[in-house]
Amino acid sequence: MSATQTLAAHVVNDDGSTIPERIWQEARRAILNYVGCAVSGSIEPAVDVAIDTLAPFSGARTASVIGRRERFDPLHAALLNGIGSHVHEYDDTTPKNYIHPSIPVASALFAHASANPVSGRDFLHAFILGFEVESRIADAVYPAHYEAGWHITSTAGVFGAAAAIGKLLGLSTRQMVWALGLAATQSAGIREMFGSMAKSFQPGRAAQNGYTAALLARADFTAGERALEGPRGFAAVTAAQYDLSRISAGLGVDFSLNDNAYKPYAAGLVVHPAIDGCSQLRRKYQPDPETIVAVRLRVAPLVLDLCNKRDLRRALQSKYSIYHAAAIGLVRGKGGLQEFTAQAVADPALARIRELTSAIPDESVTEDQVGIEVDLAGGETLSLFVEQSLGNIHRPLDNEQLEEKFRDQAVLALPSAQVEALIGQCWQLDSLQDAGDLARQTAPGATASAAAAVGS
Amino acid sequence: MSATQTLAAHVVNDDGSTIPERIWQEARRAILNYVGCAVSGSIEPAVDVAIDTLAPFSGARTASVIGRRERFDPLHAALLNGIGSHVHEYDDTTPKNYIHPSIPVASALFAHASANPVSGRDFLHAFILGFEVESRIADAVYPAHYEAGWHITSTAGVFGAAAAIGKLLGLSTRQMVWALGLAATQSAGIREMFGSMAKSFQPGRAAQNGYTAALLARADFTAGERALEGPRGFAAVTAAQYDLSRISAGLGVDFSLNDNAYKPYAAGLVVHPAIDGCSQLRRKYQPDPETIVAVRLRVAPLVLDLCNKRDLRRALQSKYSIYHAAAIGLVRGKGGLQEFTAQAVADPALARIRELTSAIPDESVTEDQVGIEVDLAGGETLSLFVEQSLGNIHRPLDNEQLEEKFRDQAVLALPSAQVEALIGQCWQLDSLQDAGDLARQTAPGATASAAAAVGS
Repeated sequence: MSATQTLAAHVVNDDGSTIPERIWQEARRAILNYVGCAVSGSIEPAVDVAIDTLAPFSGARTASVIGRRERFDPLHAALLNGIGSHVHEYDDTTPKNYIHPSIPVASALFAHASANPVSGRDFLHAFILGFEVESRIADAVYPAHYEAGWHITSTAGVFGAAAAIGKLLGLSTRQMVWALGLAATQSAGIREMFGSMAKSFQPGRAAQNGYTAALLARADFTAGERALEGPRGFAAVTAAQYDLSRISAGLGVDFSLNDNAYKPYAAGLVVHPAIDGCSQLRRKYQPDPETIVAVRLRVAPLVLDLCNKRDLRRALQSKYSIYHAAAIGLVRGKGGLQEFTAQAVADPALARIRELTSAIPDESVTEDQVGIEVDLAGGETLSLFVEQSLGNIHRPLDNEQLEEKFRDQAVLALPSAQVEALIGQCWQLDSLQDAGDLARQTAPGATASAAAAVGS
Repeated sequence: MSATQTLAAHVVNDDGSTIPERIWQEARRAILNYVGCAVSGSIEPAVDVAIDTLAPFSGARTASVIGRRERFDPLHAALLNGIGSHVHEYDDTTPKNYIHPSIPVASALFAHASANPVSGRDFLHAFILGFEVESRIADAVYPAHYEAGWHITSTAGVFGAAAAIGKLLGLSTRQMVWALGLAATQSAGIREMFGSMAKSFQPGRAAQNGYTAALLARADFTAGERALEGPRGFAAVTAAQYDLSRISAGLGVDFSLNDNAYKPYAAGLVVHPAIDGCSQLRRKYQPDPETIVAVRLRVAPLVLDLCNKRDLRRALQSKYSIYHAAAIGLVRGKGGLQEFTAQAVADPALARIRELTSAIPDESVTEDQVGIEVDLAGGETLSLFVEQSLGNIHRPLDNEQLEEKFRDQAVLALPSAQVEALIGQCWQLDSLQDAGDLARQTAPGATASAAAAVGS
């Protein structure tokens, strides 16, 4: 069987019974992380502008947009969920192929479930399948596809959204093949857009386009049946080198959710070890920041190529400053969204540590590592070597750390009581009778009962 | 200035005053050809399925879909216009880059103008600009981009739609740069989908996506500003070789509308010379088909590679049969949509000529040529050599032939009186106060006054 046929048949026929509990649990963790990102991102200007611009084009407003009061048709809700959940670039990553896998799939699923009856278990099952489909397609074309300049999160993500929604719509295998074809037809997004609103638009559009693909396929809108492997198909057209065997190898046995990582810090990945190590020193020794007289870092050479920024003119630059990374770790012990605002950049306590921090490149230090020495006024030196940075695949965030991240994000948009309720619902997603409740309860002012009423 | 900046500034600043009248006239011809294709294609199943599937997702139904009674929001109307106008593959082509240029631009413009006040002159001006933008982008990446497997009509067309709608929305140059960026973000469509409904979906989506790009850009939704020339931009990502100088060379002086060609026959291009030559023999000698005893063709070798089909099992195959081409020319003197139906395939008069026609490859014959000999029962032989096939860039259809094609197409969907009125309106498009009238008057049952009332 061809790659396209194999994937389509797997999605259609899988009943979830052979998916191990640890994968279901990882899916819950991915959803928790996704919802936190989507809630906090929902108040960003990119979402506001898209909502204002597209409002006149919405069909019946049956669907929720995560974190917002405004309602839209489910296809627009998928787009808006995608923009909001990616705009902070704080979402999950599978390092093996560099996709941010949850966005396209979960953005479409939450939009759909908020407007249609979907049980929590069916939702989570469709999420696992969609995650697997996009991951395997990404695996097949990575790294050539990414290096060529494709934003692989959206170009592969559209297939995941199509598969997940297609599963819930009950497509036949033939229709699922068409859905993948219609996804291939719409696969788009280039890295030249990084640094602009168009970046988060891309995975949003992937969610919306994959959803559209599934709807059309259900109505027998036909597509080419060799979307992935055909001579003019996705792999051949978008990757100089590819390996289609990665699509089927271990399908149903090996799960890409095992390879998912969650960012502990709202900053560039290469400064994560410094934030992590400095936060550890703060927790362990609780030094008064005023007593710090020097900070010396030994870092991978790439860190200085990318993040040798001490004079921060825009808040965004703080996410790529190795000096700011040390400062927030030592002064605040964390690196959430609020550590990278204009206010944080202007904080004199942070500015002071940035000034007295130095960093030297060391070929023996990997990008997951850092060596730290902190001199205190009394003559003492605190030191630490980080072997594996928190949040990487070998040292994942535990459930409590994920919850902490969620709180730090969601509290920007919602009151604490609602945030705590959402955390509980994410963990219990697959026991919800109506998965749409979770989406509805992210709206400002929503209460459990009000949300239930909206949904009825 | 960069390619993206140059194009954006040109579209924003051009006031149309230096566009020669022959280009305005070619634009009217392109619109006439487009509307004929869109009306006849509007009754195809691909359009029906898309309308049924997407109806629940339409916003306020302010826009017309060409050839249909159903109304949609303008973005959906752009998509549906695009599907309908491409589904018969009878639309225009610029042979220099193989795009079908009118569809993405005109599909978006008609959708927009049917819902917003746009003068005929502004409509035609925006069409000329959008046509130029997509053509120049296609020129820059052709042929590598097309050979890689991209459906260049949609991948380049999305830029044309963005530019045309952006012109009507009055974007600033900076916003137009973003519109081109948001178009690049959504540029998609692969040739693997040829032969399925997804093929015509692609230019439809390009129309809709380009339109969306312009709307978002107007609201200052930002995008990368080097969409075309950036290291991760459209050209570098989608073409192994490209020449960005083709985007600016002669801009405002040389017009791609000069290079536009209109298909006279609803069949594969390589059988056009045979239809043309046999139709000429019929017109000149009016032989009774019953008296024809043999037909001998000398054809370019490629013709037999692609079109050596005598035993036609499906109607679609008749479009790629050199034998059927000779038959319809000699028996009917034309090659419209009705010459390639199941009924035409079953017509005994056509089947008889197919059987007695032979074709031999001849290296000295180009793909625009054919040598024809027709033996009659009385011993006479009629012969002709076609040097340039009708419809190619050196022997374009004249206005009357374009009108004849329009009638042949539109009469499948609309009564004759309405068809004649539409022809008149296409020629007078730029003197219409409200270009939307033309779109509205393509609806079955529309009358001039009823359409005007709908529009008021």
